[in-house]
Amino acid sequence: MQTLFLIGIGTGNPDHLTVEARKTLAEADLILIPRKGADRADLADLRRQIVASVLGADAPVVEFDLPRRDPALPYLKAVEDWHDRIAAVWAASIPPSAKRVALLVWGDPSLYDSTLRIAARLSPAPKVRVVPGITALQVLTAAHGIPLNTLGGDFTVTTGRRLRDHGWPQGATTLVVMLDQGAAFEVLEGSAYHIWWGAYLGMANQLLHAGRLDEVGAEIRSMRQAARAAHGWIMDIYLLRRVDA
Amino acid sequence: MQTLFLIGIGTGNPDHLTVEARKTLAEADLILIPRKGADRADLADLRRQIVASVLGADAPVVEFDLPRRDPALPYLKAVEDWHDRIAAVWAASIPPSAKRVALLVWGDPSLYDSTLRIAARLSPAPKVRVVPGITALQVLTAAHGIPLNTLGGDFTVTTGRRLRDHGWPQGATTLVVMLDQGAAFEVLEGSAYHIWWGAYLGMANQLLHAGRLDEVGAEIRSMRQAARAAHGWIMDIYLLRRVDA
Repeated sequence: MQTLFLIGIGTGNPDHLTVEARKTLAEADLILIPRKGADRADLADLRRQIVASVLGADAPVVEFDLPRRDPALPYLKAVEDWHDRIAAVWAASIPPSAKRVALLVWGDPSLYDSTLRIAARLSPAPKVRVVPGITALQVLTAAHGIPLNTLGGDFTVTTGRRLRDHGWPQGATTLVVMLDQGAAFEVLEGSAYHIWWGAYLGMANQLLHAGRLDEVGAEIRSMRQAARAAHGWIMDIYLLRRVDA
Repeated sequence: MQTLFLIGIGTGNPDHLTVEARKTLAEADLILIPRKGADRADLADLRRQIVASVLGADAPVVEFDLPRRDPALPYLKAVEDWHDRIAAVWAASIPPSAKRVALLVWGDPSLYDSTLRIAARLSPAPKVRVVPGITALQVLTAAHGIPLNTLGGDFTVTTGRRLRDHGWPQGATTLVVMLDQGAAFEVLEGSAYHIWWGAYLGMANQLLHAGRLDEVGAEIRSMRQAARAAHGWIMDIYLLRRVDA
């Protein structure tokens, strides 16, 4: 029987790797690495560097081309279809002889990641084991030196899409926004919130900014646009807290 | 100037340590470790083991007695007073000659942890640097092989106290509960929720259970009580998801 190890690798700093992740990688028969489009080539490079740092140049790596989402389909349907096609590519890339197959997952497999859902599509079903990794939530709050929650308070983690569609969640004090394609915070009344923003967290080109949203929101939008233009892609995350919290 | 490194160490498995955490520990002049009450002696032991695994027996460790919270004060006041007293103990335990002081923080310093708030009380203010660590959220979801969020959905992290006082947050699909002193999930209509529960996550005595809340809630309560009686303490966490999500 095959075991599929989904290994959280943190957000781009090879030093985010845990001892458990290193041991699991070292014991893998096969390591699957996606080649994304050219715009994300540096992310595939980072995965290769991480593998090479643990295993050297002889690592048993197999690369595969990640299919693209069909932009003609509605969002959820497009995602389901995409996951089906990725599972088919995995199945074609893994020889039956590989008993311990490792996949490197950005951040952690639990957080806005599809690897678990794609793995569940494989037939015959492999045993799936998750190795936890550092998420962007930890790296953002560490970089700013702030806690996620107020004392004894709660917090909600959501997407840019949901913030734009539904606004500030009722009763929330702290909101963390991920997967924002633009600057969804612009739907909020800026004077009521503090923002702590970060992009390319843990990487050499990490960007940070923070302040009251009405004072720094436009600057963050500009930094974001300039960085995206310069690198061809951006991954960012931000924490919003009510000023009166 | 002193730098205080707050190092997230994960939830009890020494293999949760990241490369960054190991490097930071190895470069520390002084490592502060709290002795908790006798009931938590095994947690202090775990910290000592982690330090010894990186630095050997000659690690520059200083142990201190953690003050206890004053049960006569109201909750928030008691916490503020407790943090003041811990900051005073730290100040007394750190010689001015120590330039790089490390503190080992269970999980990650951002998540229901007071280390950042206590550090902010020190005078003169040291430079504070946070090294992110694996949290119980990642270890819980990894152990159960589940994602935190539904596809594109949000999730809220809260405390047992808040679940008991405020019930299920309006509009929420997924709720993670930490710091529960009892079994606050009993305020919910069990047939409407799935629960994934874990205690002593990442440790040798890890416990897991999952199912529909009305079918497994009583079992989890019993497992929790028995484990607490056997070990003298318990740390647990659970994820609740609406059945109709």
